[in-house]
Order: sequence, then C-alpha cells, then structure tokens
Amino acid sequence: MDFLGSIVFLCLFSMGFCQESMNINHLDPDLLPRPLIIEFSESRLKNMSDDIAIHCTSWRVAVEANNLSPWKTIPKECADYVKDYMLGRSYNVDLEKVSKESGIYAKSLQLKGDGMDAWVFDIDETLISNLPYYSDHGYGSEFFNNVQFDKWILEGAAPAIKPSLKLYEEGETKTKGTNENDREKSAAAFKSEKRKEITEEGFRILGNSGDQWSDLVGTSMATRSFKLSNPMYHIP
Amino acid sequence: MDFLGSIVFLCLFSMGFCQESMNINHLDPDLLPRPLIIEFSESRLKNMSDDIAIHCTSWRVAVEANNLSPWKTIPKECADYVKDYMLGRSYNVDLEKVSKESGIYAKSLQLKGDGMDAWVFDIDETLISNLPYYSDHGYGSEFFNNVQFDKWILEGAAPAIKPSLKLYEEGETKTKGTNENDREKSAAAFKSEKRKEITEEGFRILGNSGDQWSDLVGTSMATRSFKLSNPMYHIP
Repeated sequence: MDFLGSIVFLCLFSMGFCQESMNINHLDPDLLPRPLIIEFSESRLKNMSDDIAIHCTSWRVAVEANNLSPWKTIPKECADYVKDYMLGRSYNVDLEKVSKESGIYAKSLQLKGDGMDAWVFDIDETLISNLPYYSDHGYGSEFFNNVQFDKWILEGAAPAIKPSLKLYEEGETKTKGTNENDREKSAAAFKSEKRKEITEEGFRILGNSGDQWSDLVGTSMATRSFKLSNPMYHIP
Repeated sequence: MDFLGSIVFLCLFSMGFCQESMNINHLDPDLLPRPLIIEFSESRLKNMSDDIAIHCTSWRVAVEANNLSPWKTIPKECADYVKDYMLGRSYNVDLEKVSKESGIYAKSLQLKGDGMDAWVFDIDETLISNLPYYSDHGYGSEFFNNVQFDKWILEGAAPAIKPSLKLYEEGETKTKGTNENDREKSAAAFKSEKRKEITEEGFRILGNSGDQWSDLVGTSMATRSFKLSNPMYHIP
C-alpha cells in the first residue's frame, strides 16, 4: 500500500549550486557508485585509543544534538575517526535508523488526502551523498572549497542515499524543488523563509528530513523533524 | 571575572516532585555520593559484539538528535550498553563537552546587565543526577515507577552534576524555581508555558540546558539550547 500516496515532497537545497542533483527521480541507486561503503568491511575504531574514540564520539554526538557553535572543519584529531565512521557500518546503520523512525512516524499520520500534506527534504547528505567528494577532501578536515565542490556536483556522480530514498519513494507524488538560495543568507534563514512560503501556499509540513540543523530549525518548523547524521561539515 | 554575573538562572523541573532537590545552592558536590562513576574504571564496550555496540550507539545518537518517537524503556538489548555508557567515561566526557560548549556561548553573549538576561536550567539529569536511583532500576530498562522515584527524591541523596554546576556557579545571581508542573500536561507544553511567562515578565532567554528535548523545544525557545546526554529515560 502506498501509505504516503498523498504526501507532497518538497526539496530544499542547503546550498545553491546543486541543480544537477535535482533530478532525484532519475537516479538509479544500483547504478551509482558506492565503492567506499563496500570496501571498508570493518571499522578501525577498536584500534584507536579509547581516549580519542570517546572524545570524537562525544564531539559527533554534540554535532547531532546541535550543541556546537558553527565550525569550519572537523577536529584534527578526529580525522581518522570520522573517516572510519563514514566508511564503516555505523554511518549506514544511523541512516537506516532515521529512515525507519521517519517511516514509523509517517505511517502514523492521518493524511487529509487533499494534496496539501507535505514533507520537506534537504538534498545533500539527505537524498544524495557527496561522500565520494569528501573522501577526496579529508572527510571534512579540509576547509570547504566552493569551486571544487561545484565542479564535483556538475559531474552528476553523487549517489543516492538509499535509506532516505526508501521513504521518499513510498510517498512520491510530485516534487517541488527550489534552488534559489543566495549565499548572503544563512541556510537556516533561507529554509525558514521557504517553509513559510510553503505553508502560506496551504501546505501542512508534517515532516522534515535534513542532515543539518539549519535544515530543520527556525520558523515554520515541521510537526516532526529528522536529523540525518553528518559529522563532515556544518552549514549555519 | 564573573562573566555571567548579571544572568538570572531559572530552574524548571521535568516533573513535579522534586521539591527537595530545589536547594541546588546548598549542594556540596564533594560531599555527595558519586561512587558509581568512580568504581567503573573502564568501559566494557570493547567486549560487546560490534553489532550491539553499533546498534545501541545508533539508538543513543537518535535519542540525542530527537529522532525517536516517545519511548518507555531503553531497548532490552542495550541494557548493558547503557549501563557501561553511564558508568564508564563516556557519559562524563559528554557532560563536560556540553558544559564547555555552553560556556563558550555564554562568554560570547553581550549581556545588558539589567538583570533580565536569563538562562533556563532543567533540574533532573541536568543539575542533579538520579543515576544512583537508575542504577538500582536497570538504567532505564524498567518501567518508570512514580512512587519509588518520589521516595528516592525525598531522600535528598541525588548528587550534583559537576560540569553543569560549573556553568551554573559562574553566572549565579538569583534562582527562580518552579515546580508547579501537573502531570496532565506534557513536559514540553508545561515548559513552553513557563518560558512564555518568563519572557512576558521581560526576561530574555539566551540559553537553556536540559537533558530532555521537551525541556528545550516548543514555544518561547531560548536563543540557544543545549541538550545534555540522557539515554535512560524519555519525557515527552
């Protein structure tokens, strides 16, 4: 049963240069490269010193709980930790977890069936993965480079994030995308503004999925928000 | 320099039966029992199966990121994990982390010095620890028992949470407590209402510290909120 048949999916970019990746419906996850996920069979976390593992896990949890001030790169000492987290099983387990929780919530919703029940998705690190790019750039330990990242995006090689796509596909009816973000504004302000526009059009934002807290907080917030794991970068 | 000299601390209980623990200023952390923290020198996480450790860490991160629907007990298979987390170094490292981040933010604030800059603190698992109680009750694997918990609270044996107290003591001027919560209302609704009252009195809520998302979200939210770790129980 297409339980989310009448839910509208709205996609908001964290940044303004992801036009190519907008064609999310045309992505075939099986054709897309996910070699980094597969190659790493076991995490090396066990071999790290307890101190580093505890410290870096604490830092990662602080990221996920929105406890940190804006940051530009991951802590130097956590470079191996983040790499191992992203390439080992933990990252995928975390993505599966949030997808499952989103699904449980989505199934519990009483949809009105008027096409105005909406779920907002971020794109990068939510529906598609830029992990191949970040694997070439120190998993967040290098400063973000606009030019290089835009070049990567235009290659159109970013794979889909399967656990998110599962939820996305179950409810799919129509997609309303936006990529009008200007870099003058914080992502949180931009996304709040877009959510406001959406609600003013009459949509009820029941759910929101994003890998950045700036995707989720501010004004016109969704009834429930889901924070996907991302220890590689921060967008204020 | 008493950098938070003019900040007012407001305490809100998660539940309504903590009268004894309100006298936070009279707590001497050095006299208080913290045997459980000290006795456990090393975490047993390394000895757990990878699967369980990854699964339970994922669950714990989902708790901290507010991704879960209301839950009554911790997952059965995570009982040892939660115990080890609470008694090992990780929990304290996480508390220190959030205390440090709160302090960095607090120091960055431009206070008006009119006595109306405020920081809201939750009490249980934020300023004081009920860990000795939960250690006798399966670390969250047993259903919450009102009667037994009230009895424990009235003993007045709950130790202070030192990292939180550090921030609390730096800004201390006056404490305005409330324990009027009625159990008919969700904690999130109760706390939102109290924050609304506080802001209507003219206070500017610059910070909010709590171990439950229901301490932090809803209406009249603080400029920044800090989520302290708590994998043992959930208050909606």
